[in-house]
Amino acid sequence: MPTIPLIIDTDTAQDDCIAILAGLLDPVADLRAITMVAGNVGFEQQVANAHLTLNVAGRLGTVPIHRGCTQPLLRHWESAEDVHGDGSGGLSIPSDSLVEADEHAVQALLRLTAEAPGELSIVAIGPLTNLAAAIVLDRGFASRVKTLVIMGGSNNARGNITASAEFNFYVDPEAAQVVLQAGFGDLRIVPWAPLTLSDATFPRADYDRLGALGTPLAGFYHRMCAATIDYDESVGIDGSTHPDSLSVAVLLHPELVTAESGYRVDVETASELNRGMSVMAWEKFDLPVNAQVIEAVDGAAFYEYLGGILATPTTPNLPVSGLSS
Amino acid sequence: MPTIPLIIDTDTAQDDCIAILAGLLDPVADLRAITMVAGNVGFEQQVANAHLTLNVAGRLGTVPIHRGCTQPLLRHWESAEDVHGDGSGGLSIPSDSLVEADEHAVQALLRLTAEAPGELSIVAIGPLTNLAAAIVLDRGFASRVKTLVIMGGSNNARGNITASAEFNFYVDPEAAQVVLQAGFGDLRIVPWAPLTLSDATFPRADYDRLGALGTPLAGFYHRMCAATIDYDESVGIDGSTHPDSLSVAVLLHPELVTAESGYRVDVETASELNRGMSVMAWEKFDLPVNAQVIEAVDGAAFYEYLGGILATPTTPNLPVSGLSS
Amino acid sequence: MPTIPLIIDTDTAQDDCIAILAGLLDPVADLRAITMVAGNVGFEQQVANAHLTLNVAGRLGTVPIHRGCTQPLLRHWESAEDVHGDGSGGLSIPSDSLVEADEHAVQALLRLTAEAPGELSIVAIGPLTNLAAAIVLDRGFASRVKTLVIMGGSNNARGNITASAEFNFYVDPEAAQVVLQAGFGDLRIVPWAPLTLSDATFPRADYDRLGALGTPLAGFYHRMCAATIDYDESVGIDGSTHPDSLSVAVLLHPELVTAESGYRVDVETASELNRGMSVMAWEKFDLPVNAQVIEAVDGAAFYEYLGGILATPTTPNLPVSGLSS
Amino acid sequence: MPTIPLIIDTDTAQDDCIAILAGLLDPVADLRAITMVAGNVGFEQQVANAHLTLNVAGRLGTVPIHRGCTQPLLRHWESAEDVHGDGSGGLSIPSDSLVEADEHAVQALLRLTAEAPGELSIVAIGPLTNLAAAIVLDRGFASRVKTLVIMGGSNNARGNITASAEFNFYVDPEAAQVVLQAGFGDLRIVPWAPLTLSDATFPRADYDRLGALGTPLAGFYHRMCAATIDYDESVGIDGSTHPDSLSVAVLLHPELVTAESGYRVDVETASELNRGMSVMAWEKFDLPVNAQVIEAVDGAAFYEYLGGILATPTTPNLPVSGLSS
Ligand SMILES: [Ca+2]
Ligand SMILES: [Ca+2]
Ligand SMILES: [Ca+2]
Ligand SMILES: [Ca+2]
Repeated sequence: MPTIPLIIDTDTAQDDCIAILAGLLDPVADLRAITMVAGNVGFEQQVANAHLTLNVAGRLGTVPIHRGCTQPLLRHWESAEDVHGDGSGGLSIPSDSLVEADEHAVQALLRLTAEAPGELSIVAIGPLTNLAAAIVLDRGFASRVKTLVIMGGSNNARGNITASAEFNFYVDPEAAQVVLQAGFGDLRIVPWAPLTLSDATFPRADYDRLGALGTPLAGFYHRMCAATIDYDESVGIDGSTHPDSLSVAVLLHPELVTAESGYRVDVETASELNRGMSVMAWEKFDLPVNAQVIEAVDGAAFYEYLGGILATPTTPNLPVSGLSS
Repeated sequence: MPTIPLIIDTDTAQDDCIAILAGLLDPVADLRAITMVAGNVGFEQQVANAHLTLNVAGRLGTVPIHRGCTQPLLRHWESAEDVHGDGSGGLSIPSDSLVEADEHAVQALLRLTAEAPGELSIVAIGPLTNLAAAIVLDRGFASRVKTLVIMGGSNNARGNITASAEFNFYVDPEAAQVVLQAGFGDLRIVPWAPLTLSDATFPRADYDRLGALGTPLAGFYHRMCAATIDYDESVGIDGSTHPDSLSVAVLLHPELVTAESGYRVDVETASELNRGMSVMAWEKFDLPVNAQVIEAVDGAAFYEYLGGILATPTTPNLPVSGLSS
Repeated sequence: MPTIPLIIDTDTAQDDCIAILAGLLDPVADLRAITMVAGNVGFEQQVANAHLTLNVAGRLGTVPIHRGCTQPLLRHWESAEDVHGDGSGGLSIPSDSLVEADEHAVQALLRLTAEAPGELSIVAIGPLTNLAAAIVLDRGFASRVKTLVIMGGSNNARGNITASAEFNFYVDPEAAQVVLQAGFGDLRIVPWAPLTLSDATFPRADYDRLGALGTPLAGFYHRMCAATIDYDESVGIDGSTHPDSLSVAVLLHPELVTAESGYRVDVETASELNRGMSVMAWEKFDLPVNAQVIEAVDGAAFYEYLGGILATPTTPNLPVSGLSS
Repeated sequence: MPTIPLIIDTDTAQDDCIAILAGLLDPVADLRAITMVAGNVGFEQQVANAHLTLNVAGRLGTVPIHRGCTQPLLRHWESAEDVHGDGSGGLSIPSDSLVEADEHAVQALLRLTAEAPGELSIVAIGPLTNLAAAIVLDRGFASRVKTLVIMGGSNNARGNITASAEFNFYVDPEAAQVVLQAGFGDLRIVPWAPLTLSDATFPRADYDRLGALGTPLAGFYHRMCAATIDYDESVGIDGSTHPDSLSVAVLLHPELVTAESGYRVDVETASELNRGMSVMAWEKFDLPVNAQVIEAVDGAAFYEYLGGILATPTTPNLPVSGLSS
């Protein structure tokens, strides 16, 4: 079976970790690099969370972690720590032996795509600062990427960080706009709403069922996503949300997608009121399409899929403090 | 039965006419004035449409029509003539004897509310230029209005004139923002989407049934809304839309409303991309509430209600060219 | 000698008062109305200052004072009280008998220009809210005004309220932009910088000389402008500034102008950083000219002119508390 | 004599070339790299112009030329080719043997400053895209630069590309704002107006005198700046302008500066009207100072200085087509 070489660009916390697990453990995936970008929680914590994730999968040291941009292009960084806590689920591993790659994330993105033009895909599940910086440095970058899947925005629906904006696009709206207009040949968007709310939210019973699969990954999942589901329930969302892991899943298994359309997508950069809002214009407006927006997925199949990932037996490289064995 | 004194502020075309009919013929309504504002179609055509509507109800000359602002506060006027044609349904009446009030719409709004502070309600079913101008001239205006019902915006859902903006707010976003922030004590919003699409859209069979009631008003309705339903169907909306008449209906019959919530509503004025978009922030964001946004209505009851209005037997004051008798 | 009929639109404080004196006492002037707009200091204080000015000229009751808009079109009112104090120079008169016109300033502007289309000029020496509101209500207003002189903006030079913006345009930038784009046939601008700094600033010795002319008006002048000259000197301006009285002077005596050019003038409304900044594009840019910007005046002649006004003997209608006789 | 190690970041055309000559030939200068950024003319032409300049100085191959960002961060590139033509003065050299460094300009900026933290200065005489990108990749970059001299903006005075904006800041306003707010410890600005117009413009007689010095560099100068002086004269500027060479000169010879002040400088990014305008707020506004703005230089000494550079005898490495010997 041919595999899909990919890079995951991530602000690693909660569901970012599950997304990385899918990239690591799905047999069709060939994860070449993890590139870190400022987003959910403090940068060092994000890096630690990425190591923690590799470790619980028993894959520490097999995939390079590249540090990237620690702030948005133009804006001050704003965290989502009210949602995520520190995003670690209270877990930790000894940090002495953990090392990241020397190469900057943006350089890694440029080099890896230059080494294999048209072959690598990218799943971007944080703010888009790294990708935008790669584009600014090299306007040929976009043409060398096979498929870019972006978790971001909402499809004419509610936001999460403000009434109209989703977090990833909100944090670095200029980066999002640069990426969306850069001419990627195959650009797919997993919007926060309504898609992930309707098709990729696991009610607590389902969430608990995944947590009880008996593997280290299942325990890890249950701990990592605990803060998310608590927060979600407090704001009226009935379950844990999985936009990031869904984004990896739809790259690796396009058959999960049951509806999608071409849209012209722009991100608001001119207004504070609507900062980061994604305007997704459908065919009525006859604008040039720059993205395929995923409108529906097979939620049950996605749940099965994640269950399969989490059921994978693994041996953590290092003992995980806080994770019951 | 005590009646509800009201003013309708309107860019009269299609469903604006039906809204005026409700204001004229509903026994609980006491329509004091019609104030005209630049919006859907050419200003003179709008005035003609208002006369035409009074005439078909047999009420020509009983309610003053006040000419108001012929352009938005700051923007160039943009029509919706692609949707409405000239908004007359191809109907006309002899214009020689038709006269409007001498008084400017803004003056009428200021005077009528000053004469009966706290008693009059306003249903605003066009761009909000007249109301904003009244506020600019007299910052006490808002406090003298009993209830203001605004047809405008979308509730974290699709727009109609752009992907994110509804027409009335789009045409004069600054006016909309002035009105929303002016401190009206009882401000209710009928948003375009999802409300009027889900609960106040009549499929063609229903539309035709109303048109076949056998009265002059029923024939008038069927002609006036023909362009709307054709356009709607061409863009994937399954029926004729009735946001303006719904706005009058919810003022006169609040029991039609089955769900509503307090929101902080702001209108985008800083960005062309999102010009006129309504940001409706729900309770999660802890912002000061400035409007009750109607979230659901009893669509069947509203259909019955409009049917009752249109079944009212009337004798047009002047013969209507184009209307079969 | 034919006279020049004019209206002064003013946020009356300090030099606004001197401008009104010129409009009252210059034999070529026929001052028809004073219209009040929110600006320098509290609205009631401004009205009081206008009465005070009429009184010291012995003209109380001869020119109507119309109350106008008490806030900018869209913005919250911001005062210049750090510059002006209350703008009264510590003077006051008994207020019991003072009355303003019933008619709103905007209505007065509309009515007076409609009664004598093409004959009246306006000198606007405050924020442009009243004029913009008149335009919003009646798009024919601009065509009925003979000459409009605006004190506002800077000509590619320093601002005073921010680094880039002059106070009048800053307070209501949208109004300024509406007025500038409304199609006035003869629109002349007196910019704050460099014009009034280079050609209409009186060093303290000159200021004191005017104050020592021995008339009630001279004493009034010296008191009214004391706060201005103190402030000016504190920010490095060597003397008292007279943009408002200069604006009346150039209408009544165009020969004071020694240089002027056609410019395309726009006012910044989209950015907080440059809020209210006037962009004055000279001929290089080939943009349609909408204003004649005054670039130089005969400063000595203007000083002589003001001296002549202030030397006029007058008998105040009411005794002025605080003014030595 | 200790030398000043520096990098010149440039959109090489006309006076950029003269700036490079100063960096190459001034004995106090130690030019470590030339980094290219999109600006005045086509990118390849700019690179060719840089080689041409090194060649005429007989220094081809001694200073690396690094290709940098070929477009602004967010905006489409706009040229100044109406001013500069192709910026080559009609000169050319055989291109076969010319090579640029492999390393990207942004990488070079990051590496060189990391190798000698606190030692290198940068003179930025084009749009600030490269510097902003370096900051985005590494937030520690600014702290490693000794002195940054920026040619850009105007000090409350006229622009050149629009009425209010100077070209370098206009082309990439977001980059300019990123750089200005990045915390450079010693940031000096050479503004277009009034400084370079009043103190660094050479009337045609002076320009011709420099061109007649009899060296290859003098002939080169006269050819390279011919388009500039022709354009300048066509828009009312009496001579050839030298903002870029002045910027190098003030780094190498601070004694040329006769007046400067600390300002808070921001660049307009939110408005198209004022795109790229530099707001320079002086002490009155009590804002945190982020730049020393040069307000006056000894123009005669600067002219002498440039004359000295151009009088330097050199032997071009390759024959220059179009340059009389
Ligand atoms: Ca994420
Ligand atoms: Ca309407
Ligand atoms: Ca004033
Ligand atoms: Ca340059």
